[in-house]
Amino acid sequence: MKAHVYHGPGKHALEEHAKPGIAEPSDVIVKIVKTTICGTDLHILKGDVPTCEPGRILGHEGVGIVETIGDAVTMFKPGDRVLISCITACGKCDYCRRLMFSHCVTGGWILGNKIDGTQAEFVRIPHADTSLYPIPDDADEEALVMLSDILPTGFECGVLNGKVQPGSSVAIVGSGPIGLAALLTAQFFSPAEIIMVDLDDKRLEIAKRFGATAALNSKDGHVVDAIKKLTGGRGVDCAIEAVGIPQTFELCEQIIAPGGIIANIGVHGVKVDLHLESLWDGNITITTRLVDTVSTPMLLNSVRAQKIDAKRLITHRFKLDGILHAYQVFGQAAETGALKVIIEA
Amino acid sequence: MKAHVYHGPGKHALEEHAKPGIAEPSDVIVKIVKTTICGTDLHILKGDVPTCEPGRILGHEGVGIVETIGDAVTMFKPGDRVLISCITACGKCDYCRRLMFSHCVTGGWILGNKIDGTQAEFVRIPHADTSLYPIPDDADEEALVMLSDILPTGFECGVLNGKVQPGSSVAIVGSGPIGLAALLTAQFFSPAEIIMVDLDDKRLEIAKRFGATAALNSKDGHVVDAIKKLTGGRGVDCAIEAVGIPQTFELCEQIIAPGGIIANIGVHGVKVDLHLESLWDGNITITTRLVDTVSTPMLLNSVRAQKIDAKRLITHRFKLDGILHAYQVFGQAAETGALKVIIEA
Amino acid sequence: MKAHVYHGPGKHALEEHAKPGIAEPSDVIVKIVKTTICGTDLHILKGDVPTCEPGRILGHEGVGIVETIGDAVTMFKPGDRVLISCITACGKCDYCRRLMFSHCVTGGWILGNKIDGTQAEFVRIPHADTSLYPIPDDADEEALVMLSDILPTGFECGVLNGKVQPGSSVAIVGSGPIGLAALLTAQFFSPAEIIMVDLDDKRLEIAKRFGATAALNSKDGHVVDAIKKLTGGRGVDCAIEAVGIPQTFELCEQIIAPGGIIANIGVHGVKVDLHLESLWDGNITITTRLVDTVSTPMLLNSVRAQKIDAKRLITHRFKLDGILHAYQVFGQAAETGALKVIIEA
Amino acid sequence: MKAHVYHGPGKHALEEHAKPGIAEPSDVIVKIVKTTICGTDLHILKGDVPTCEPGRILGHEGVGIVETIGDAVTMFKPGDRVLISCITACGKCDYCRRLMFSHCVTGGWILGNKIDGTQAEFVRIPHADTSLYPIPDDADEEALVMLSDILPTGFECGVLNGKVQPGSSVAIVGSGPIGLAALLTAQFFSPAEIIMVDLDDKRLEIAKRFGATAALNSKDGHVVDAIKKLTGGRGVDCAIEAVGIPQTFELCEQIIAPGGIIANIGVHGVKVDLHLESLWDGNITITTRLVDTVSTPMLLNSVRAQKIDAKRLITHRFKLDGILHAYQVFGQAAETGALKVIIEA
Repeated sequence: MKAHVYHGPGKHALEEHAKPGIAEPSDVIVKIVKTTICGTDLHILKGDVPTCEPGRILGHEGVGIVETIGDAVTMFKPGDRVLISCITACGKCDYCRRLMFSHCVTGGWILGNKIDGTQAEFVRIPHADTSLYPIPDDADEEALVMLSDILPTGFECGVLNGKVQPGSSVAIVGSGPIGLAALLTAQFFSPAEIIMVDLDDKRLEIAKRFGATAALNSKDGHVVDAIKKLTGGRGVDCAIEAVGIPQTFELCEQIIAPGGIIANIGVHGVKVDLHLESLWDGNITITTRLVDTVSTPMLLNSVRAQKIDAKRLITHRFKLDGILHAYQVFGQAAETGALKVIIEA
Repeated sequence: MKAHVYHGPGKHALEEHAKPGIAEPSDVIVKIVKTTICGTDLHILKGDVPTCEPGRILGHEGVGIVETIGDAVTMFKPGDRVLISCITACGKCDYCRRLMFSHCVTGGWILGNKIDGTQAEFVRIPHADTSLYPIPDDADEEALVMLSDILPTGFECGVLNGKVQPGSSVAIVGSGPIGLAALLTAQFFSPAEIIMVDLDDKRLEIAKRFGATAALNSKDGHVVDAIKKLTGGRGVDCAIEAVGIPQTFELCEQIIAPGGIIANIGVHGVKVDLHLESLWDGNITITTRLVDTVSTPMLLNSVRAQKIDAKRLITHRFKLDGILHAYQVFGQAAETGALKVIIEA
Repeated sequence: MKAHVYHGPGKHALEEHAKPGIAEPSDVIVKIVKTTICGTDLHILKGDVPTCEPGRILGHEGVGIVETIGDAVTMFKPGDRVLISCITACGKCDYCRRLMFSHCVTGGWILGNKIDGTQAEFVRIPHADTSLYPIPDDADEEALVMLSDILPTGFECGVLNGKVQPGSSVAIVGSGPIGLAALLTAQFFSPAEIIMVDLDDKRLEIAKRFGATAALNSKDGHVVDAIKKLTGGRGVDCAIEAVGIPQTFELCEQIIAPGGIIANIGVHGVKVDLHLESLWDGNITITTRLVDTVSTPMLLNSVRAQKIDAKRLITHRFKLDGILHAYQVFGQAAETGALKVIIEA
Repeated sequence: MKAHVYHGPGKHALEEHAKPGIAEPSDVIVKIVKTTICGTDLHILKGDVPTCEPGRILGHEGVGIVETIGDAVTMFKPGDRVLISCITACGKCDYCRRLMFSHCVTGGWILGNKIDGTQAEFVRIPHADTSLYPIPDDADEEALVMLSDILPTGFECGVLNGKVQPGSSVAIVGSGPIGLAALLTAQFFSPAEIIMVDLDDKRLEIAKRFGATAALNSKDGHVVDAIKKLTGGRGVDCAIEAVGIPQTFELCEQIIAPGGIIANIGVHGVKVDLHLESLWDGNITITTRLVDTVSTPMLLNSVRAQKIDAKRLITHRFKLDGILHAYQVFGQAAETGALKVIIEA
C-alpha cells in the first residue's frame, strides 16, 4: 500500500509499505478514506518529537471503513464507516476509567507517533472498540475529519477547561487552526465576547468571519491595554493560549481577570515565567491538557445537528499521491492561507 | 399616583394610591417606566395566593428610574436607570450568602405579593443595593423588562437546573411564555435537539420560529412514542416542566432518559405521582426551584451582546391607563395570542 | 461444583452444578473465596425480580482468585486475587463511556440475575477487565466483600448523589445494612450531623456506635418535629432514603431543607406521592440511582488507608455448605441482628 | 484605648489611640475579646506591604462583643458576640455577588492594612452585616479566633481549590501554621494520604500528630523520589504550596500526578518557573486564591460539631499589654515552636 513515511529530521516520502494486519484481538484494520495533516506532524518532521522514530507512517486523524476486526472487537464489523480518534484508549486502565484517555497506559497519542498512523491506505487501530466512533449515515466525511483531533482539542483543552459560559468574556491568543477550533467551539456556550489575538491580519480577518467579536493584532504592543478597555478594565474571564511560546502565555497572565481561567492548548518547548508575585491573590486558575477526546460523541451530535460547521476549517484538498505538496502548502500557511487540508486516500 | 390594586378574588382596579416613601435605610423609590403582567398575577386575581392580601398593588417586574434613596444605599443614586428583580434579596442572610435569593428570610418574592408592587407610577424597593440592577446606557428597556422574571425563571429553573449541554436532547413541556423563555435561553448551550410539547398548535408554531427542532402536539396521546422515536429510543437528557399540572409532570417522567434530569418550573397546586417503581434505578434527577435571579447580570450581558433577542416574547403594548384591558388580553392568551405585554407607566 | 440455585419463588437449594467455562474472549473464571447475601437476593426468592429465572445461581458479590482468562483479557492473569463488582461493565457502550456502568447495554446488574452468580465455587465474569478489581496484597478479604455492592451503593446512591459536605446536616431514613453503609461512607465528608431514623431500636443503637449524631425511632409519629428541632427548624441538607416504601420517601419530603437533596437508595415497588404543591418552590433535588461502582477504586484506597472499617457491617460467618442457614439468619434480621454475613466458599 | 500601631519598617508600639466611632451606617464597633498575630503582620513590619501606612493599628483576626451599630445594621445588636473575618465584604459588588469576597471593591483584606485593625481594645468593622459572624453560645472563643483567617485560608485556598477527595493523595509543602491549617481541614475529606514536607523536623513531628500519614524533610534533596515512591510512581493528586518561594512551588510541579491540582496558598514575592515544556500535556491545574471566607459558616458548624479541633494550632497566650513580647515569640517560631498565639484584650 502507499504510505507517507518519516525518515528522520527533514526527510519524509510517499512510498510503498507493507499493509498492516491484526496484531491483537482488540485491533481493527481501517481502510482510510480521508485524512489530514496536523501541526504536530510538522513538529515531527523537524525532529522535535523523539518518541517518533524513522520508518514511522505519520498521521493521527481520519475517517475510513472497517476492513477486518480482531476476535475481541464487538462494537464494529467490516464495512462500518468510522471516525479515527487521535487518542487511543484501552478503556480499562486507571486513567481511562477516569476518562483521561490522553494518559491511557497502553494508548494515548500513539498513532503516527509510536505506531504507524493514518497517512496511508490502511491503518491498524489498537483498542478499536474504545478508539473508533461509528459515523452516522448522513454525516459529511470531510467535516468529521475535523473531529479526529482539532475540534476536540480546541474544545476540551480550551473551551471546557476554560469554563466558557454564557455572558462571559473570552480571549483566544493565536488565530491558527487550533485557535480557530477553539473559537468555533467556544460559541457552543454563547459567551458575550470572544477576542482573538494574532500577529497575522489575514488570520484575524478569518476569525471575525468565524464569530470573533473583536480581533486584535498584538504586534503594536498595546494588546493588553486594548483588552482591558474592551472588558471594563477587568480583563477576560477566560484566556485560551493557542500558540505555545512564553510570550503568548505571559500575555494571558496579563489579561486574565480576578477569578479567571487561563486554559493552555499550546505545545510548549521551554518553560515560562509565572508571575505569582502578582497572581498569587488573583483567584485564578491555569490548566493544561492533552486532548482526551471524551467530547467526540457530543461533537458528532453537534455536527449532525448543524450546531457547528466544522468544514469551515478546510482550505485545501489533495489526493494521497499529492501529500508531499499538501505538506508544503500546510507548512507555508502564512503564504498559502492554509488552515486544514483534506487528503483523500 | 395611579396604581393597579388587588381587592380580593376577581376584583381589581386602577386607582389613586398614596405614593410610597423610604421606610428603611436600604430602600429606594423607583419611578416605573415600563412594567408587565405575569401568569402569577392571574393566580393572585383568582385568589390562589393567600400571602397577597386585598389592597395590594400588584406587579413584580419592570424597569424604572431611581427617584430617592435611603441613607444606606451605596450602589444607586437618583436618576439611575434600573432593572427591578422579581426577587428581593437582603444579601446578608444564610440563604442569600448561598446565592439562594429566592429564600431570603426578609425578601424572596414579596413585590406585588407581601408588599406593594410595580404596576404603579412608583414602587418602594427594599434591600435595593442587592435587588436592583443598573441598566447599561445602550440597552433596550422593553427587552430588559423580560429580565425581571420570565427569562431568569426559564433559564435558572429550567435550563441551568436541567444542565442543558452542547449536543444534548431537551424537551420542554409547555409552550407558553415560560416554556418559550426556557426555549430561548436553552439555546445559550447549543443542545442538539429541543422538542417543544403543547396542546396549542399556534404556540408550537411560535416555538419553531424561536428555535425548537421539533414541536409536538400532545393531544393525540402519542407524544411519548414520538419523543422516543426522535431520541433513538432513549428519551431526552433533560425534560423541562413548564405547565404545573400532574399530567405534564408525569409526561416528563415517561420521556426522561437514564441519567437525565427533570427540571420543574411549573407552579403546582396538587401533588403528582412519582413512579419510583420504574425510576428508582434510572439514575435520574428531579429539581424544583423558585428563581433566584442570580443569572440577571449574565442575562444583561447577553442581551447587550445580542446573544438573545428578549423582545421576541413581547406581543402587545399598553399604557398604564389601559392596564385592565391588558389583563384581559393577557388572560385570554389562547384567543389573543398574547405572550408578554408591555405596560408603559 | 457446589452452587446455590434459585428454583422459583420460595424454592432454592445448594446443589451440584456444572462448572462454568470461558464463553467470550473477555471472560474470566473466578474461584470464589468469599461471598455474601444481599437484600436483593431475598427479593429474588420472593419472586419479585422477573429477570431472574429458575435455575439461576444467585449472588453478585464476592472476592476470589482468577482461574482462567479469555484471549482478550489483559488486566488479569491466573492466580490474581480479585474483587467482583456487582455491576458488569463493557467499558465500551455509550453509558459506560459516561461512567454510568449500571446501564451498560450488555452488562449492568446481571450477575446472579440474568446470568449465574457468585454463590458457588466458581463464577464466569464477562467483561472481566472492566468488572473486576485487583486486590492489594495487604487487604482484608472480608472487608473487601463489602465493596462488591453495599458500600458503593450506600456511597454513590446516597452520599455522593446527596452531596454530603463538611458541616452539613444529613438524615438517613432506614438503619438496615444499606442505611448503615451510607452512614459509614457519609463520614468521609465530615458532615456536622447525621440523624438516623428507623423503627428498630437495636439498629438505631448500632447506628450510634457507627457514628450517627442522633438516632430517632419514627414509630411515635413525631420524627419530623424532632428533626426540625435538631436542625434549627430548617430540615436537613440531605435526606437519604434507604428503605424503599412510600412512607419513608414521603418522610424525606417533609424533612428536607430549602436547597436540600433527597437521595433515594431504596428499591421501590410502587409509586409515591411527590408533594410538588409544597416543594415546587423549595429549590430541592431528588435523585435515583442504581449503583455504578465507579467509586470502587476509591473505596479500595480508603479501606487500605484505614479510613473506613468495612468489616463492622459483618455480623455472621458461614461456610458455603451452610448457605441455606445463612439465608435464614440473614432473612430474619430483626431476630438475629444480622447485617451482612460472610459465606466462605 | 490601647492599640498596637505600625510606625514604618521595623517600628511598632503598644500605645494610646483614639477609640473608633461609627463612620458609615453599615459600621459596627466591636470590643475585642481575643485576637492573634498573622504571618502577614510580620510582612508588614518588614515593610513588604506598601498599602499599610505608618500609623495603622495592625491585626485582622479576632472575636469580640458588639458595642455600637450603625443605622443600616440589621444582623447584629449591641452585646452580641461576634467572629471578625479577615476579609471585609460589602455583599453588593460584582465580586461579592459571585462570592469572591476577597476582591470586594470596597473591602477585601483591608483590616489592619488599609484601615485600623483588631490588635486594640476596639475596632470599627465596615460592612458589618456581611463581615461579622454570630458566635454560638456554646462555642470556644479561642478556637474561633482560628476561624478569622488561618483555617478558612488553609481550607479554601488549599483544600477546596485542591479538590481533596476521599481516597486521594495530598502533599502539603510547608508545615508552618498555614500548612498545618490545610492539614487539619484536608481531613474533612478523608484523603488516603497526606504527605507533609518541611525543612524543620519539629514541625514535621507536629504534622504527624495532626494527622499526616507521612512527613518528609526536604533538606536531603530526595523528597521528589520519596513522594513518587509513596504514590506508586504517579505523584500526588493534590499538591498544596504553603510557603511562597520558587523552590517550593517548583517542587509541587515535580510531584504532581497527571490530572492533579497544585493549589497555591503561599504569598509570593517573585516569579516562579512554570515548566510547561513538561506540564503542557499533563492535564494539571494550578490555582491561586486570596481567601474569600465563604467557608466560615461551615467551619463554625464543624467546630461546634467537634469535627475539627481548631485549638491545636494555639501554642502561646498573652495579654494585650504583652503584645510586643508575643510578636517576638511568634517571630522566632523556629526557636519558640510558636504556631498561633492568643492575645487577650
